[in-house]
Amino acid sequence: MMNRKMIWRIVGLSLSLEGGLMLLPVIAGLCFGEKPVAYLAAAAVTGITGFLLTRLKPGTETMYARDGFVAVALVWVAMSAFGALPFVLAGDIPSYVDAFFETMSGLTTTGASILNNIEGLSKASLFWRSFTHWIGGMGVLVFMMAVLPMGGEHSMHIMRAEVPGPVVGKLVPRAGDTAKILYMIYAALTLAETVFLLFGGMNFFDALLHAFATAGTGGFSTKNASVGAFNSAYIEIVMAVFLVLFGTNFNLFYLMLTGKFKVALKSEELHWYLILIAASVGMITAGITRIYGSIGTAARNAFFYVMSIMSTAGFCTVDYTTWPQYTQALIVMLMFIGGCAGSTGGGIKLSRVMLLVKNATADVGRMISPRRVKRVRMDGKCVSDNVLTTVGTFFSLYILILLVCTFVVSFDGNDFTTSFTASLSCISNVGPGLAGVGPRYNYSGFSVLSKIFMSITMLIGRLEIYPVLILLMPKKSRKG
Amino acid sequence: MMNRKMIWRIVGLSLSLEGGLMLLPVIAGLCFGEKPVAYLAAAAVTGITGFLLTRLKPGTETMYARDGFVAVALVWVAMSAFGALPFVLAGDIPSYVDAFFETMSGLTTTGASILNNIEGLSKASLFWRSFTHWIGGMGVLVFMMAVLPMGGEHSMHIMRAEVPGPVVGKLVPRAGDTAKILYMIYAALTLAETVFLLFGGMNFFDALLHAFATAGTGGFSTKNASVGAFNSAYIEIVMAVFLVLFGTNFNLFYLMLTGKFKVALKSEELHWYLILIAASVGMITAGITRIYGSIGTAARNAFFYVMSIMSTAGFCTVDYTTWPQYTQALIVMLMFIGGCAGSTGGGIKLSRVMLLVKNATADVGRMISPRRVKRVRMDGKCVSDNVLTTVGTFFSLYILILLVCTFVVSFDGNDFTTSFTASLSCISNVGPGLAGVGPRYNYSGFSVLSKIFMSITMLIGRLEIYPVLILLMPKKSRKG
Repeated sequence: MMNRKMIWRIVGLSLSLEGGLMLLPVIAGLCFGEKPVAYLAAAAVTGITGFLLTRLKPGTETMYARDGFVAVALVWVAMSAFGALPFVLAGDIPSYVDAFFETMSGLTTTGASILNNIEGLSKASLFWRSFTHWIGGMGVLVFMMAVLPMGGEHSMHIMRAEVPGPVVGKLVPRAGDTAKILYMIYAALTLAETVFLLFGGMNFFDALLHAFATAGTGGFSTKNASVGAFNSAYIEIVMAVFLVLFGTNFNLFYLMLTGKFKVALKSEELHWYLILIAASVGMITAGITRIYGSIGTAARNAFFYVMSIMSTAGFCTVDYTTWPQYTQALIVMLMFIGGCAGSTGGGIKLSRVMLLVKNATADVGRMISPRRVKRVRMDGKCVSDNVLTTVGTFFSLYILILLVCTFVVSFDGNDFTTSFTASLSCISNVGPGLAGVGPRYNYSGFSVLSKIFMSITMLIGRLEIYPVLILLMPKKSRKG
Repeated sequence: MMNRKMIWRIVGLSLSLEGGLMLLPVIAGLCFGEKPVAYLAAAAVTGITGFLLTRLKPGTETMYARDGFVAVALVWVAMSAFGALPFVLAGDIPSYVDAFFETMSGLTTTGASILNNIEGLSKASLFWRSFTHWIGGMGVLVFMMAVLPMGGEHSMHIMRAEVPGPVVGKLVPRAGDTAKILYMIYAALTLAETVFLLFGGMNFFDALLHAFATAGTGGFSTKNASVGAFNSAYIEIVMAVFLVLFGTNFNLFYLMLTGKFKVALKSEELHWYLILIAASVGMITAGITRIYGSIGTAARNAFFYVMSIMSTAGFCTVDYTTWPQYTQALIVMLMFIGGCAGSTGGGIKLSRVMLLVKNATADVGRMISPRRVKRVRMDGKCVSDNVLTTVGTFFSLYILILLVCTFVVSFDGNDFTTSFTASLSCISNVGPGLAGVGPRYNYSGFSVLSKIFMSITMLIGRLEIYPVLILLMPKKSRKG
């Protein structure tokens, strides 16, 4: 038995919240002398729908794991469906499918856009577009847990479904308190970046919106030329450094805040994260120094793009599809890996990749001497077979869904590189890819079918597969 | 402790055998009035080296699993290293690295070629080139087991390492008898195809060599234009039908031979194999009928290429890179999947893909109701968790190696599609890929580094990963 009423009530709460959040772009619009009627109307429709759903009185508060998964998936679909309304009502994105794609891309922090002229948008829409990144980055429901008094047990199910990574640890005994701490770190870092960007000569509006997009590792910009429009080495470096931070496991920040520096700095994932960044920047710099004439410019471009891609933000400056082929292959590898577990980054997550490699190595060892049990260790602790199996299955599903998406998207007639990297970009929540979805292009040319399929793939990537698959499963087996 | 002497003795036996087999191209050359001195010399060098190694007297016959793996990997490397000699000595392939690549491609039944003018080769070299497919298709060591009296236990280790598929079953109690039966079926089918091709107007030489390449699902042809040179619908259909057979689990043929038709026809893998072939042919036909004017021609081309790719032979006729993009994406999917377990085909193998999908579905079910144990079934029987974990790890390693190979090969400066599909083609033992490795091109343009790396990748694919990784592992951990 599913607790349907409880699920719809949670959807209702999220929509009420979204309706409230839509008042922020109203304020932004008013500041610039716009008449953001569309946003007021959308806020009303969303808020009222949400309020009506919260009137459902569930017989019991009990929720099972599956209820948590279904609730999370439904919340994200509903928020994208309603979040798309103001774009259409304001006339900024006339097609509803396009608006849905753009909102899903925003909430899932993918940053893939169907807009050919971003600068033509109203300020309210620009604000809303970038703000969806900030909402989606840390998670909609995690935010609700932080601000609303919710029961203990089922909030953990929700957190597990919404926070990326193979293992979710509570920082403090109550899930609600963990959510509050996470959001406080998130907000503080966002604010810090805004200030740094202001110093770089950005106006407040641009600084805030780029900080939103960095924090969620989304990648939407306010400019057609993305970050490249500001033509500032300082801004690129500030953003790259903050992408390093937002791609890190937030638990480490908490450990540092509570004085446990040594424990935080011992994290194996952190070490490999930094090594991988350094190695990638080095390899790319070697290949592009010739293009930019100086090793400094080359290293800056390399650092910016390594962080833009590995954190899965997907901001753009120069066109990396003109770089040597091996640097592009490296970019594809980084698209697979993504950020650290417990960060706002997408992709498979570095710790999962580490577990896969460690398990594979151990497996080769097991083949050599079957009687000797080789344990996989992470941060010095043994990893249970259960976690290893789950990571293996996750990876298989990731690749299978990527290939299915590539096949479906290829019906649009784009070359293989475009279809493949577009699909990879969607499931890893990056944004740009290679060839026809490189930094100079966008997703406007895809068919309606592809756009819908890619929207689902982005959500599959953001919620780490299971919630969406469980939602898509036939009802009979879902009842299980 | 490894039984080093025993391992080198097995390598010696294989080289002796290879030296003997090199007399066949000598005969072929003599028939055409050539003076195949190169093949005589290579046969002598190979045979004598092999003979000297067999003089090693191991203290014990005992072999552990790891010894079996290392022996199999070493045998294949040694046979490629010596098998390349006659090409160089005959002057047909002047570069030793090229000759090694071509021999490894032959033995692993990949069929990727570095030759720009195949028809310029001596008849002896043409014979040897295609014959390596036939040797490698069913396995070098399986052949040795069939003809030499070898001990019981360790031959099973070897068979497990050399016969493709997640589970190797002995058909009859003794491994040597199983090997004999497999080779008899293999030889009978090869002979049957030769006869069918003769009826299509091929001369005996071409018919036999194409039958060798079909049987091993290799893909080397005697013509520059591959099978397209014969311009015969009959030949294409005969070869496609035989590719269906050689892509099937040979155990099923044995079951049929012993009258157990019902058991054989109930095989789940067989059903999905046929369904996948039919669906792929249907989808491709729909997309290319427009190009060929008639649905019949379109269906024939679709059937030929679906079988050529899925069986991982890689024969070519028309240029499929001019077909609609979705058909090319489908071809890439088939390159991943490959043939059935226990066939001569490469790829991940259909039964593994089925287990992956079934396990993923069951896993989603487990997420919904963690307390209810969902078992994965195949052919009605429960699949053990151990097999499922192994299949998952195999898949992870397959993708990781594919991505590493793509990255290494991309240093040559080819576009992503070329580097990716060339790597996929190598690990899946197919031959052609898309873009720069499409049917109109070959592998001659790759760098020496790429050619060596691709040779290793082909062997990794043919021996299903573990033997090669164990061979490449540092000695200390190998001793484990």
